[in-house]
Amino acid sequence: MTYYRTHNLGELRASNIGETVTLSGWVDTKRDLGGLTFIDLRDREGKTQIVFHTDVAEVSVVERAQKLKNESVIKVVGVVKERQSKNANIPTGDIEVFVTDLEVLNNCDVLPFQISGDENLSENIRLKYRYLDLRRSQMTRNLKMRHKMIMSIRNYMDEKGFLDVDTPILTKSTPEGARDFLVPSRINPGDFYALPQSPQLFKQLLMISGVEKYFQIAKCFRDEDLRADRQPEFTQLDIEMSFIEQKDIMNEIEGLAKRVFKNVTGESADYEFPRMPYAEAMERFGSDKPDTRFGVELKDLTDIMATCGFKGFKSAVEAGGIVKAVVAPGVAEQFSRKILTEYEDYAKTYFGAKGMAWIKLTEEGVNSPIAKFFTEEEMNAIIARTEAKVGDVIMIVADRAKVVYGALGAVRLKLGKELGLINNDEFKFLWVVDFPMFEYDEEEQRYKAQHHPFTSIKAEDMQLFLDGEMDEVRTNSYDLVLNGSEIGGGSIRIFNPEIQSKVFEKLGLSKEEAQEKFGFFVDAFKYGAPPHGGLAFGIDRWLMVMLKEQSIRDVIPFPKTNKGQCLMTEAPSKVDDKQLEELYLDSTYNSEIV
Amino acid sequence: MTYYRTHNLGELRASNIGETVTLSGWVDTKRDLGGLTFIDLRDREGKTQIVFHTDVAEVSVVERAQKLKNESVIKVVGVVKERQSKNANIPTGDIEVFVTDLEVLNNCDVLPFQISGDENLSENIRLKYRYLDLRRSQMTRNLKMRHKMIMSIRNYMDEKGFLDVDTPILTKSTPEGARDFLVPSRINPGDFYALPQSPQLFKQLLMISGVEKYFQIAKCFRDEDLRADRQPEFTQLDIEMSFIEQKDIMNEIEGLAKRVFKNVTGESADYEFPRMPYAEAMERFGSDKPDTRFGVELKDLTDIMATCGFKGFKSAVEAGGIVKAVVAPGVAEQFSRKILTEYEDYAKTYFGAKGMAWIKLTEEGVNSPIAKFFTEEEMNAIIARTEAKVGDVIMIVADRAKVVYGALGAVRLKLGKELGLINNDEFKFLWVVDFPMFEYDEEEQRYKAQHHPFTSIKAEDMQLFLDGEMDEVRTNSYDLVLNGSEIGGGSIRIFNPEIQSKVFEKLGLSKEEAQEKFGFFVDAFKYGAPPHGGLAFGIDRWLMVMLKEQSIRDVIPFPKTNKGQCLMTEAPSKVDDKQLEELYLDSTYNSEIV
Repeated sequence: MTYYRTHNLGELRASNIGETVTLSGWVDTKRDLGGLTFIDLRDREGKTQIVFHTDVAEVSVVERAQKLKNESVIKVVGVVKERQSKNANIPTGDIEVFVTDLEVLNNCDVLPFQISGDENLSENIRLKYRYLDLRRSQMTRNLKMRHKMIMSIRNYMDEKGFLDVDTPILTKSTPEGARDFLVPSRINPGDFYALPQSPQLFKQLLMISGVEKYFQIAKCFRDEDLRADRQPEFTQLDIEMSFIEQKDIMNEIEGLAKRVFKNVTGESADYEFPRMPYAEAMERFGSDKPDTRFGVELKDLTDIMATCGFKGFKSAVEAGGIVKAVVAPGVAEQFSRKILTEYEDYAKTYFGAKGMAWIKLTEEGVNSPIAKFFTEEEMNAIIARTEAKVGDVIMIVADRAKVVYGALGAVRLKLGKELGLINNDEFKFLWVVDFPMFEYDEEEQRYKAQHHPFTSIKAEDMQLFLDGEMDEVRTNSYDLVLNGSEIGGGSIRIFNPEIQSKVFEKLGLSKEEAQEKFGFFVDAFKYGAPPHGGLAFGIDRWLMVMLKEQSIRDVIPFPKTNKGQCLMTEAPSKVDDKQLEELYLDSTYNSEIV
Repeated sequence: MTYYRTHNLGELRASNIGETVTLSGWVDTKRDLGGLTFIDLRDREGKTQIVFHTDVAEVSVVERAQKLKNESVIKVVGVVKERQSKNANIPTGDIEVFVTDLEVLNNCDVLPFQISGDENLSENIRLKYRYLDLRRSQMTRNLKMRHKMIMSIRNYMDEKGFLDVDTPILTKSTPEGARDFLVPSRINPGDFYALPQSPQLFKQLLMISGVEKYFQIAKCFRDEDLRADRQPEFTQLDIEMSFIEQKDIMNEIEGLAKRVFKNVTGESADYEFPRMPYAEAMERFGSDKPDTRFGVELKDLTDIMATCGFKGFKSAVEAGGIVKAVVAPGVAEQFSRKILTEYEDYAKTYFGAKGMAWIKLTEEGVNSPIAKFFTEEEMNAIIARTEAKVGDVIMIVADRAKVVYGALGAVRLKLGKELGLINNDEFKFLWVVDFPMFEYDEEEQRYKAQHHPFTSIKAEDMQLFLDGEMDEVRTNSYDLVLNGSEIGGGSIRIFNPEIQSKVFEKLGLSKEEAQEKFGFFVDAFKYGAPPHGGLAFGIDRWLMVMLKEQSIRDVIPFPKTNKGQCLMTEAPSKVDDKQLEELYLDSTYNSEIV
């Protein structure tokens, strides 16, 4: 078809035997065997075995072939023959190509690592030579799947009448949220653009514009102190709709999630995604994004402990706290005191629990350091409530609800993974709905919007809101969870300026402060805003979960380290003083001092 | 279908008469007439006339309707009836809806401008209230067409096996090209990311990765001194392919251009796009992006002037310059001396011409201030060469070739527009190929790469290159031109490290300097780079030309002014000192001084 190839390297079959073909690609592997040189030639579509022998090719061709290094790029002309020892593992395994002519397009130097080799490469080497890392079959698959995923998203959204509208990257610093990346303006000295944390304001403005159905696969930016699974730059599927209610958008999006899931995994999710209220998710799983592929649900012991003889638990309840338990199934023998202490330390270190009690149910009866504090009746009530059986271990945490949920939710997940309770071949979608409007910020001693202050309040909770029952107010909001990962979330927005004012009021913002803070955005609502709502998906995490990858960096073409560095380009880097001068900036950083 | 609507507002037809429907949208226009209130209700899909009358609705409903302000958002329930005075101009013109129930979803304040009104709005007002500007039908169309364009691009590229791979926005400052936007890194103090001017290096690296066919609709950034039709942030369709030659990629891309053109304009471009060498484009049209919708081609008079009696022209030729002419058809009467001076000033002011001579051919004979310098023979030669007829004006410029082409190319375009020689309903595609590899930078007194130093040299010019004939060396390069606008361009790249070294050498870069400047990118070519090439389209300009818009800002959802400002969000803006402190930066700008 071109000078370089008549076929790609995944294409030739027995039906091509006898044809003269031109092929190009990379030398994947090479072996010399009894005067023959075999090369697996590789391109994006697959591998084809090519053979060099002096019966067919000139001596000089065979000699050049023998000298080829792995990953060199070559073009060959040859004849397709039936293969003697067929390889059923690859689609081209029935044939091989006897080369008559060889053109070495580019030689390869000594490689920093073998492409078809060691799987346990250091990630830093992989990231430094990302262009070689992407040649590895797993990474090639991930690139292809990322393409497939975003194409299927776009086509679904297009079919449903959504318009792809691109919003600016050079925009304005937002008053709430994480830390912005700033971009100094040279033409407007002293002023800065900010990179968007999300297109939230723009997409709501597009609803005010009458776009009605908007989507965008957008780059978003957060200058956070980086965690292992966060990137300073990430990709978000952003969606907003007008003239809809919560159920309408959830149905539309559920269809999207099924389409994408099918296209990426090849499997179907032919069921109505369960819809679980936030409160239930917390009570049953200690998490607002429960992994429902396994049980080990949280059991409530608060009422039993309220009157028990164990002061630790009783006083927690008296202070307004709760007592909950999870049951680790069948590990009473296996879980030594050391292992149980590990679990306790995990709950204490990362989730602020003051302790975690345990009760083993053995053939010989109850075995627990706290058994002595309970009457037989109380112990029976605990066992009955937790539905624990002989061989199980009951793990109990008492504290403020937030701490109990955090600790036991995490312990539950740890049990799920370590006891092999999770079927890794299974995918489970779940909607979590009705998130609280407000949460109390203990540091700042005030209520904040849990999602953002534009989230609408459930009609049935409006009176609670007006009465100032801040903890009780729920919103029209929804998160989509896949296997315990939040892959998307959103809400129906407030579109009534009076209710918006009341929300600002409850958050302690005067009209003037709200105006100053949200300025033109609040103004826009004066000019005919339709009812609207939307959501956003984290493309990277969503793909990672579907591909069962462990790191978000494996599904991003050119990711950064958790220090925000690109090891390949060495960004970020020093710049010329002249560049800073043009921006009217001085760097105050002195690397020798700090 | 939802609480808010059973139908959209472009949907109802005579076949719906008698149905009870729910509609939502914006009050586009309202008029009271003989006890009836008529409203044109508008949504994204169209307009539907709704009618309020006390025969059908309660008095309170009619009274509320009468008070509605334009652009308020309402929901109505009503019955579809046949319209008495049908409106053939809109698809819903056969019916109207008699409203029984009205819900005012949101009132509209006093508007800064009428949506369905004045077309001569100040652009600053439009940009400040962009969310209202986008409600205007022209802008709604532009948003829809932008969506349609990018969807058809993506689907075409997907069909052809290209992978959409996203490359970083936070990346590294590039050694050549325009000025970068910088982003200070907080976690790596003293270091800066740069926003990409294009994904050029990444896309070539992806070829080295074996992606083979890559595309991306990418945001790109250039911190230029802004011109009217430039944006600091723009959208680029970026493409790269491996194992291809120039003709292969041009064929693939020509198919893309035809598909996009058809989808956006509804018209077909069913012809093979002409392919014109750069040298020919310059000689005939004085432009590397000629508008071929009209003639008025440049005619060469150099040989005639070399021996003529007019010293001005003769000495220009002797100094190595050229003399060229264009013929303004049929304007000998119409073009006064004043108009001709305007044209001359235009050529002088913007294109550095030292002057422009003219010759009118009238019924009475030749009329020209320079006629006296020529013999009759010479004058006849000029007329014969230019093919000028009685009634025409010959316009002549003599100078260095660059100046002559610049001036006469521009004069030609000005004539085309002002004399109505261009058929504005016509679209003409053209490939311009074989651009020069080098151009001489008179300021820096050295040769530079015209495109970039990775552009490959035409095989037949390789000897010229090796011989150092810098001005003669042409590249495997191609620009796609539509109606005189360059909408895309690219080249086949150098993939052979030795030739690359030679190019650096000719550009005056030592091996060490090249390594320092292009570092990891040049290294990557050691590990098996395939032959490859690509191109990039400017989405914004391409769409602007197809939609016949005059400003690039009308096809960008949220554009910036030519001072790089977003009038809606007021970006860029001041930031807190604390934000700068965290970045170890001091602003040295004092607005009172500057």
